[in-house]
Amino acid sequence: MRIRVDAERLRRDFDALAAIGGTPAEGVERIALTPAHLEARAWFLHRAADAGLETSVDAAGNHSAILRGAPGAQTLLLGSHLDTVPNGGRYDGALGVVAALEVLRAVREARLELPVTLEAIDFTDEEGALVGLLGSFAVAGTLDARMLAAPRGGREALVAGLARAGLDEARLADARRDPGSLMGYLELHIEQGPVLEQGGFQIGVVAAIVGSRSFELAFDGTAAHAGTTPMHARRDAGLGAATYVERVYETVTGEFGGCVATVGRIELEPGAFNVVPGRARVSLEFRAGSNDELERLERRLLDEAGAVAREHSLGLDVRPVGRWQPTPLDATVRVAIAGAAGRLGLSTLELPSGAGHDAQALAQVTPSGVIFVPSTGGLSHQPGEHTPWDDCVNGANVLLHAALELALR
Amino acid sequence: MRIRVDAERLRRDFDALAAIGGTPAEGVERIALTPAHLEARAWFLHRAADAGLETSVDAAGNHSAILRGAPGAQTLLLGSHLDTVPNGGRYDGALGVVAALEVLRAVREARLELPVTLEAIDFTDEEGALVGLLGSFAVAGTLDARMLAAPRGGREALVAGLARAGLDEARLADARRDPGSLMGYLELHIEQGPVLEQGGFQIGVVAAIVGSRSFELAFDGTAAHAGTTPMHARRDAGLGAATYVERVYETVTGEFGGCVATVGRIELEPGAFNVVPGRARVSLEFRAGSNDELERLERRLLDEAGAVAREHSLGLDVRPVGRWQPTPLDATVRVAIAGAAGRLGLSTLELPSGAGHDAQALAQVTPSGVIFVPSTGGLSHQPGEHTPWDDCVNGANVLLHAALELALR
Repeated sequence: MRIRVDAERLRRDFDALAAIGGTPAEGVERIALTPAHLEARAWFLHRAADAGLETSVDAAGNHSAILRGAPGAQTLLLGSHLDTVPNGGRYDGALGVVAALEVLRAVREARLELPVTLEAIDFTDEEGALVGLLGSFAVAGTLDARMLAAPRGGREALVAGLARAGLDEARLADARRDPGSLMGYLELHIEQGPVLEQGGFQIGVVAAIVGSRSFELAFDGTAAHAGTTPMHARRDAGLGAATYVERVYETVTGEFGGCVATVGRIELEPGAFNVVPGRARVSLEFRAGSNDELERLERRLLDEAGAVAREHSLGLDVRPVGRWQPTPLDATVRVAIAGAAGRLGLSTLELPSGAGHDAQALAQVTPSGVIFVPSTGGLSHQPGEHTPWDDCVNGANVLLHAALELALR
Repeated sequence: MRIRVDAERLRRDFDALAAIGGTPAEGVERIALTPAHLEARAWFLHRAADAGLETSVDAAGNHSAILRGAPGAQTLLLGSHLDTVPNGGRYDGALGVVAALEVLRAVREARLELPVTLEAIDFTDEEGALVGLLGSFAVAGTLDARMLAAPRGGREALVAGLARAGLDEARLADARRDPGSLMGYLELHIEQGPVLEQGGFQIGVVAAIVGSRSFELAFDGTAAHAGTTPMHARRDAGLGAATYVERVYETVTGEFGGCVATVGRIELEPGAFNVVPGRARVSLEFRAGSNDELERLERRLLDEAGAVAREHSLGLDVRPVGRWQPTPLDATVRVAIAGAAGRLGLSTLELPSGAGHDAQALAQVTPSGVIFVPSTGGLSHQPGEHTPWDDCVNGANVLLHAALELALR
């Protein structure tokens, strides 16, 4: 089918959206359910209505543009999110939403009569300023009361955000869709990493969204006077933490190719120039594509922490603080994406997604897939986030054709 | 001379003093010029007056008990400080002051007519909650206007403390003594380190108070998404900092025996579980007994920082934040201390002091010496700080006999 998105119109939408919550450094800040975010969502519904599409907002605040199929048809969701991290970029989430809207317009203008309803959906709070994947969990029916009771961003932010959006916390779960009503879910997103760019690929077909586990480790030594305590008489918790950071890096690069592990935070106590650290608190997070690999990583990295503690005569306390299951994505959807890209003459690479996406919530209830486009320099979650415009258009066309393939299958 | 301090009376004074600002964990908190500290100083003057000694307070708030020698005699100062660090111990500073007071009482009771005036002095703000060595710098005439303008503890604390003590900032420098009026300075202090205890020595004769230099180093990498950035594509500032901490430890233990270096603080930015650190700020402090050694240490440790930055493709910014000259102590005074200890049948070790003391201010203007007694487990600046009581009494007797030797020379 020789149908394409309107690249000019997509560009105008993309730029108009980037201006909402735009920062001086050409970034965007639309934290979930803040006024800038709500303004972007209103803009999205307005653009959908202008295009003659039906619009709706569900009980979790998810905003949708709808192109109805035959009565009783299943719905193929195309979407992403309009919220950003603080001081974020223009592409993360936004590209997927404007591309989904553009796909609906392109199908409508081509007067294609599809046997499915197409719905372009902007999910609430993907980035986690409040809960994280709030809207997509609600749609999948997996929104957990505990997440709401102790949300990532704190209760105060959640309560205030819901109030601003006119949402009722007790009714959020009503956004659940009957899985039988869904045909699938497709998401276009920037890679947020350097793999496609470095390999010269135009389109990424996401095989799985990796799982992660995180721990807080505390190495316990003895705080001591920096001037009067000889080096050999110290139990320096900071030195233990330093050794551990190096060991984590060596272990993962040496034994777990393709996985990542990160120590993003180190706190030394008491934390003074002239006191040997008595305690070092270290954050550890690692990600892998399978539970098996996560299990092996956890065992190796925690064993290593024990070994470092013994070597430096330190105590060790390990506390798990997070666990996210890996999400393999549907094989049929992956084939549809790769096939669409192939027909469009675009080079593809199948790769895992190291970042979380709304697709991981939807994948629990309906066949789901994610299309990646390259991120310049691998940068994301910052104003410098960038994807060449041709790649954005390619991604939107792959989204269009993968949707058609799934709809017409 | 068969004269000794009264160990029972010394003990009663020591215990009474420890109760002022006493903490539940058997520690002491008498931060300079807070009410607890002022109460301890008043107690000191009261005890001195009870013993029939003259008392005085100078323009820098230093509190003294005085046993006059012949008219026109020079003064031999014996002292230390009654202030403590936050949540400190009972021995640091306090032992030296009560022992000095006891020496004056013992000399007075023995009806010795000395050709010098003996003065037991409690210096203001040794620990540095306000300025650090404030009282002893004032006596030495080296109190620097810049220290007062930008004090360690902030202007607010200094202004409030001076007001509580009834001191006039503009008159602090009036506490200066004419060096010609001074015969010398002797200080009894706990070691605050493990060297005497580990070697089984009863008395330490301090050869020099070490100098220190401190720097703030910043390693600059690229903050990146912990899930989407492969290990090999990272410029992880935290990894650089970790490598550097290990390198500092290896360099000092391998090449600079007897010196110490400490990384007491590490701050990773942005400091989140799921972000590769883009910046690591690392505190570096090192100490040595001579300027030559400090110079060599500085060169080696900063070279090493440059090497680590290159290995990890990081930027490096180095900012000096502190510099303290080493203070060699007077040879005659050292001989007097060692001689006194020998006559009392006590084993001695000559060693450097890794911590600062009022003696380093006095040594600029008058022959000065420091007597160390062992610190159990090397602990100090905490409630667990401890010195066996026999060692305290030994130290007080060495203080007495070293003073007599210098007075009668």
